[in-house]
Amino acid sequence: MSGFIVAVRPYPDGMHYLDHAATTPVLDEVREAMLACLENDFGNPSSLHGPGRKARQLVDDARDRVALAIGADPSEIVFTGGGTEADNLALKGAAHKRRGNGDHLIVTAFEHHAVLETAESLQAAGWELTVSPVDATGHVGPTAIAEAVRPSTVLASVMTVNNEVGTVQDIETITAAVRETNERVLVHTDAVQALGSVPVNVRAWDVDLAAFSAHKLGGPKGVGALFIKARTPVSPVIHGGGQERGLRSGTLNVPGIVGFGVAAEIAAKEVGEKAERLARLRDRLLAGIRSIDPDIQVNGDLERRIPGNLNLAFGGADAETLLLLLDRAGIACSSGSACASGAIDPSHVLSAMGMSVDRAGSSMRLSLGRSSTDADVDAVLDALPEALRRARRAA
Amino acid sequence: MSGFIVAVRPYPDGMHYLDHAATTPVLDEVREAMLACLENDFGNPSSLHGPGRKARQLVDDARDRVALAIGADPSEIVFTGGGTEADNLALKGAAHKRRGNGDHLIVTAFEHHAVLETAESLQAAGWELTVSPVDATGHVGPTAIAEAVRPSTVLASVMTVNNEVGTVQDIETITAAVRETNERVLVHTDAVQALGSVPVNVRAWDVDLAAFSAHKLGGPKGVGALFIKARTPVSPVIHGGGQERGLRSGTLNVPGIVGFGVAAEIAAKEVGEKAERLARLRDRLLAGIRSIDPDIQVNGDLERRIPGNLNLAFGGADAETLLLLLDRAGIACSSGSACASGAIDPSHVLSAMGMSVDRAGSSMRLSLGRSSTDADVDAVLDALPEALRRARRAA
Repeated sequence: MSGFIVAVRPYPDGMHYLDHAATTPVLDEVREAMLACLENDFGNPSSLHGPGRKARQLVDDARDRVALAIGADPSEIVFTGGGTEADNLALKGAAHKRRGNGDHLIVTAFEHHAVLETAESLQAAGWELTVSPVDATGHVGPTAIAEAVRPSTVLASVMTVNNEVGTVQDIETITAAVRETNERVLVHTDAVQALGSVPVNVRAWDVDLAAFSAHKLGGPKGVGALFIKARTPVSPVIHGGGQERGLRSGTLNVPGIVGFGVAAEIAAKEVGEKAERLARLRDRLLAGIRSIDPDIQVNGDLERRIPGNLNLAFGGADAETLLLLLDRAGIACSSGSACASGAIDPSHVLSAMGMSVDRAGSSMRLSLGRSSTDADVDAVLDALPEALRRARRAA
Repeated sequence: MSGFIVAVRPYPDGMHYLDHAATTPVLDEVREAMLACLENDFGNPSSLHGPGRKARQLVDDARDRVALAIGADPSEIVFTGGGTEADNLALKGAAHKRRGNGDHLIVTAFEHHAVLETAESLQAAGWELTVSPVDATGHVGPTAIAEAVRPSTVLASVMTVNNEVGTVQDIETITAAVRETNERVLVHTDAVQALGSVPVNVRAWDVDLAAFSAHKLGGPKGVGALFIKARTPVSPVIHGGGQERGLRSGTLNVPGIVGFGVAAEIAAKEVGEKAERLARLRDRLLAGIRSIDPDIQVNGDLERRIPGNLNLAFGGADAETLLLLLDRAGIACSSGSACASGAIDPSHVLSAMGMSVDRAGSSMRLSLGRSSTDADVDAVLDALPEALRRARRAA
C-alpha cells in the first residue's frame, strides 16, 4: 500500500485512456485483495460457521475502510450493487419512509440519470418534483435550491461533483441553506465522482445520505455504498434475507466489497497528491489544445472543478465523429456521459447549463485519473489536429 | 474447460465444507476469467471507444453462455446484482407493469425470503397476496397453486428447488395448471438453487420469469440474472442510465458477469455427471448418519430432490449448538438458511412443511457440491457422534 502513484499503462494495447470519469482501471492492490478473496474466502457472510465468519470479518474490515475514507461511522454504510443502486435507495428509500411528512422532492437539472430517472419514477408515482436550475458555470446556487424548498419537501438531492463537467458543488453551504428553510428536509448527494478527486467528509458536508461507487476510484464494478446518517429512517428497495440491517437484501459481494475497501482507502490517502499531479497534466493538456485552436471553449468554469476533468466544445465538429477518430488513434475519451448506455442525445448537463444543441453536440470530455501520464497528454496533442480537421470537414 | 470435476480442498484451513446451498467456492476457471478481465478489460460497456467495446463484447459473450445454460435467448437475460435483486425485479417489475390487469399475487409458503419479503412489500402497497401451501414432502401441488388463481391474478411464483430441503418442483406441470386456469398469469420461478443441480430449460418449463445467481454454482457473489421471456413487459426496480434495455440501470459488473458466464457454462455441462457423483456421496453420508443414530429423520422426501441436499432432524439436539460443535471440528454446515442473515428463527420452510418448532429447531442442512469428496463425508461421520452427544446433553 505504498508508492500509490504509478506510471504504468493501464490499457495493454497502447491505448491512451482519458475517460476516467466513465470508469477506471482496477488498481493492482485492489485486484490482489480481490484475488485472495476469490481464492480462499468464499464463505457467505450470513453463515455461522468458520468460512462465513471469515467472510463477515472481511466485509466488516472493508466497511471500516470505506467509512474512514468518507468520514462516516461503519454503521452508517450500506453496501449496494453500485452507485446507481445507492442513488435509488437514497431517493426511493427516503421517499417511501417519509411519505407521511410530505410529497415533494428536489433534484438539480444536471444530476446523473441515476438520480434524475429515479426522481421521475417517483414523480410518476405521485410525488411533486422540482428540478432546480444550474448556472452556466456548472454550479448550483445554494439560494436556488433553498428557494425550491417547501414545507412539504422530503428530500433534496445535489451531486457533489458533476460527472460530465467535473464542477464541484459547495455541498456544506447548500445543506445549510436547505436546512435553514426547512430543517426536516433530508439532503442526499451523489458523490460518485467525488471520492478520490476531492476530500470527502459526509459529516462536514452535513448530509443525510451520500452515494458512492467503487469503479470510479480504481475499485471493481458492481459495488457501491450508500452513507445513511445514523437515525435516518430509510425503506429498502431490494427485499429479502435482511442483509445490511434489512436495507439491502442479497448475499454480500464479498470480493467486490473487499476491493472497494482497498480502493477507498487509497483514494482518500492520495487525493491531495493526485489532485496536484492531475492539475498539472490538465493545464498542459488545455494549453496544448488551445495552441491547436484558440477558439476551443471550456464548458463550465475551471475553478471549483476536479482537476482531472476537461469538457471542451470543439466548435464546428461533431463530438461523436471526433471521439471515433481519436479512438482510432488509440485515445479513449467521451462525448456526453458513458452512463447513458451509448445514448447519443445532446447532454442534459450541458443543456442545463444553457448551452445550445450545437455546442453540446460538439463537446467532448477528456478525464484524467490516477494512471494518467504526460504520454497521454502528448498522444492527444499529437492526434487532435488531424482528427479535428477531419471531424470538422465531415460536419 | 476440461476435467471439470476436481477433488481439491476448496477451503484452505482443512475445513470440510458442506454448505454449498449457502454459497460455493469460486471455480478456478471462473477466477482466471475474472482476473484477466480485472487486469486488462476495465472498460465501461456503455463507452463508445475501444476499451468500452471490448467490455461490451465480454458481456455479450457471457450473456450468450448464461442464455445457453438455461435454454433462453440472450436477449431474454437481464444481469442483476444477484439472485435476490432478480427476484425483486420479477415480482415488483411484473406487478408494477401489470397493475391494470389485476391486483393479486401468489407465492408458495416455502419460497426464499427474496420472494416472500418482496411479495409482502407488495401486499403492504395494496396487492392481494395468497401464500399457497406446500406439503409435508416439501412439494407444491399443481392443483393447490391453480386453485389459488383468480381472474385478477397477475403473477404466481414457485421456486424450482427449495434452498433448505432441496426438493425439486415440477415447474412445467405447475405452469400448465396455472395457465389452464388463467392464461394471463405470469409464472416466475426462483431457480437460484436449480442451475448446476438439475437440468434447466426455461422454455420447457414455459415460465415467463426465472431468477438465477452466480455464486451458487461456482461463480462470484454480486451477480445474478433474470430471465424475462420475450415480449413480457416488466418495469425496472433500479432507475438510471438505462442499461440492460432500461430494465436494470447501473454500470455493468463486467468481471462478475464474465465469471457468471463461465460458471453457467460449466454448470450446465456438468450437471448429469455431478448429480450422479453427489447422489453417491449423499447416500453414503445418509447411511453413515443412520448407522450413528437410526432415529435421525430426513426432512422432506428423498425423491424429487437435488442429490446434494440432506436436511435432517437430529431429535433432542439444538441445531445451532450442533452446528457450532461441528464447526469446531472443521465441518461447515447450516441450520436454516444462510440467506436470512444469521437469523436464528425456526425455519419458515420446515414450518410450512408442517414440522413442529422442536423438529425444526433440531434440523440441520448438509449440502454437497462440486468440490465435495469422500473425505468430507468421512469427516462428518467421524465428528458427528461426539458432537451429537454433546449437543443433546446441552439441550
